Amino acid sequence: MSRPRVVIAGAGFGGLTCARALKRAPVDVLLVDRNNYHLFTPLLYQVASALLDPGEIARPVRQLIRPLHNADFRQASIIGVDFDGRRLLTDRGDIPYDYLVLATGAQTDYFGNVSMARYAMGLKDLDEGLAIRNRVLEQFEASRWTDDPERRRMLLTFAVVGGGPTGVEMAGAVSELIRLVLRKDYRDLDINEVRVVLMEAAPYVLAAFAPSLRQAALRSLRRKGIEVMLGAKVESVTESALRLEGGEEIAASTVIWTAGVRASAVGQSTGVQLARQARIKVDPTLQIPGHPVVFVIGDLAGASDGRALLPMLIPVAMQAGRHVAASIADMVEAGGARAFRYKDPGIMATIGRNSAVAQLGWVHLSGFPGWVFWLVVHLVNVVSFRSRVIVLVNWAWDYLFYDRPVRLIVRARP
Amino acid sequence: MSRPRVVIAGAGFGGLTCARALKRAPVDVLLVDRNNYHLFTPLLYQVASALLDPGEIARPVRQLIRPLHNADFRQASIIGVDFDGRRLLTDRGDIPYDYLVLATGAQTDYFGNVSMARYAMGLKDLDEGLAIRNRVLEQFEASRWTDDPERRRMLLTFAVVGGGPTGVEMAGAVSELIRLVLRKDYRDLDINEVRVVLMEAAPYVLAAFAPSLRQAALRSLRRKGIEVMLGAKVESVTESALRLEGGEEIAASTVIWTAGVRASAVGQSTGVQLARQARIKVDPTLQIPGHPVVFVIGDLAGASDGRALLPMLIPVAMQAGRHVAASIADMVEAGGARAFRYKDPGIMATIGRNSAVAQLGWVHLSGFPGWVFWLVVHLVNVVSFRSRVIVLVNWAWDYLFYDRPVRLIVRARP
Repeated sequence: MSRPRVVIAGAGFGGLTCARALKRAPVDVLLVDRNNYHLFTPLLYQVASALLDPGEIARPVRQLIRPLHNADFRQASIIGVDFDGRRLLTDRGDIPYDYLVLATGAQTDYFGNVSMARYAMGLKDLDEGLAIRNRVLEQFEASRWTDDPERRRMLLTFAVVGGGPTGVEMAGAVSELIRLVLRKDYRDLDINEVRVVLMEAAPYVLAAFAPSLRQAALRSLRRKGIEVMLGAKVESVTESALRLEGGEEIAASTVIWTAGVRASAVGQSTGVQLARQARIKVDPTLQIPGHPVVFVIGDLAGASDGRALLPMLIPVAMQAGRHVAASIADMVEAGGARAFRYKDPGIMATIGRNSAVAQLGWVHLSGFPGWVFWLVVHLVNVVSFRSRVIVLVNWAWDYLFYDRPVRLIVRARP
Repeated sequence: MSRPRVVIAGAGFGGLTCARALKRAPVDVLLVDRNNYHLFTPLLYQVASALLDPGEIARPVRQLIRPLHNADFRQASIIGVDFDGRRLLTDRGDIPYDYLVLATGAQTDYFGNVSMARYAMGLKDLDEGLAIRNRVLEQFEASRWTDDPERRRMLLTFAVVGGGPTGVEMAGAVSELIRLVLRKDYRDLDINEVRVVLMEAAPYVLAAFAPSLRQAALRSLRRKGIEVMLGAKVESVTESALRLEGGEEIAASTVIWTAGVRASAVGQSTGVQLARQARIKVDPTLQIPGHPVVFVIGDLAGASDGRALLPMLIPVAMQAGRHVAASIADMVEAGGARAFRYKDPGIMATIGRNSAVAQLGWVHLSGFPGWVFWLVVHLVNVVSFRSRVIVLVNWAWDYLFYDRPVRLIVRARP
């Protein structure tokens, strides 16, 4: 008798954790992802700011699942689900399942703003991270060709929209790339012509953190030369400018958009009921109502803790992955799925070198202690030993010599 | 009085060496390149075979010229030269010069074969190296979706055309990537369905080497499972096959073309007299006849040693770069340019791990001793200390664990 097949759509933190947790279960696991790699997303902004190369924050899925003798991988984009026929539909063919775990994550949301979608850059996947790196470096090269200070200022203004952890980290990293590295590369650069602007619609950054940590982050950002604009709502973006609600225009040829995120399109394509941010409504067990063999985890899951939807965070995805793996293992043995409860380990965000904020229950860290904590957590969690060595060499190099190794403008020929 | 301006078109081995050799000359140097980086081309095949990331074999030009206080850089593509007006023409604007050094190197030559230009992949720059890496990995993923063994074989046949050092190195590296790494990633892979075929029109590989070394290389290639086809002339290429003169067809969805190379289009665009391979005819001093302030070095230069054109090799480019720098320094002080004479330091090529051939005058090395020699030479010459550390870590990792870190399918979003 063949073993039940668990198909996991998405090899992010949720999907990969679920596959690992099924290692000893009497099932066959098939991971499906549109990319052939698992991405360590917390360091994506370091690829975008030319500190790390893709190989340092991503691992081939096939390499990661080698120790799992019941798991295999297929690269494909997910189109939908045939619930009645129990088939996952992909651009390369259908995949039958006995149990299905949907874990395709989230994507940038421009809230239907066409100008934003066209001219602003997202930072959710590796291709986007490399595109931002290329763009920032290209603007500096282009700025050397003009005698018009207005145009130079437009080329050298980098606007980051969204004061959440991604926006704060990206603004901090771009500012340091410019002030510590590019300044030395461009001898005739007038640093006063360069602007890094962080815009946030709320009256504070890092809404998820305690007020004292928000304040600490704000001070840290401003100390690093970042212009933080609070209460600033972006209305539209063009090739060369950004317009705020109220009419103010800021000349900028680079706009990085981190202010909106919604669940991946897989939710919509399944036709099931959706919650906020296009997330799939699920039972407390993370099953889709009426589809007991289909689970949803991670950013795609509209799971609630009773008061609000759970945040789109890696710990939520990993805990749900483990929980669902246990439920499936029970169901295979004629048991049932249990309700999921999220245990919050805390949150953190870094603002360039030397500074971070961390909120771990009652413990609040900021500044250098926060940064050391951030460093340890991330180094421990970077996906493999080898990466850890290389990431550490790169970080140490940057720290000691203020030098970024990979400020290359590269794109694979299509 | 302002100092004479030396414009160097191309930041490869020739151009960069020339800029460095002008460090103490009473001139201002401006390097121009279409990329913002200098590429360590001898290891490009290792990017293509997923062993190294771009940041490990390329350095930003601006970083490399930081120690040169009389040098600056501009990123631009060269369109032509206005000899009378002494201006280098680029896609971003004109650049006036007092002395001009053309060092734009060489590109893949498909000899006007349209099918080849369309379907075969070149390996001359970083974008092409990444494109090959993506293609090879994509074929393996695609092969998992078909039950048709014919189609699988077509997807898993990797044809390398050209038995020169690049072709030999590429075939060796792809074969090892498959046999040592991908075989472990794809548990259900039938290795007999995978073919790496190296095709060479001559009756031997590595024409530039002594017959005994050619033989050693051939044995080494075959031992690594590469099908070497000698006397095989490729007539045309389609999306799924390659046809040889004589009519034989080989089903292959990946064809890597290393059999032809010609000077960059800058030669043609200048309208001056060209030698073989579109190289610019030069005087023994490397000046363009009739244009005493314009020098040509490296692969673009049709320089002769009296019997034949000098080979397109890095040592030729570097020696010419130094020589021309000395000539320009003399000319600035009212002296004249001297004739260039190439001193051959020897040649080498590697065939995967553990095996290489090196021909250093009367000293011939092959197999493991050749490889150790190759390793030392390349490690010493990799462009910076940091890269050396990281390249060594990667190589050691590969050597000990047969594992490639960077088999990621990634392309920067356009």
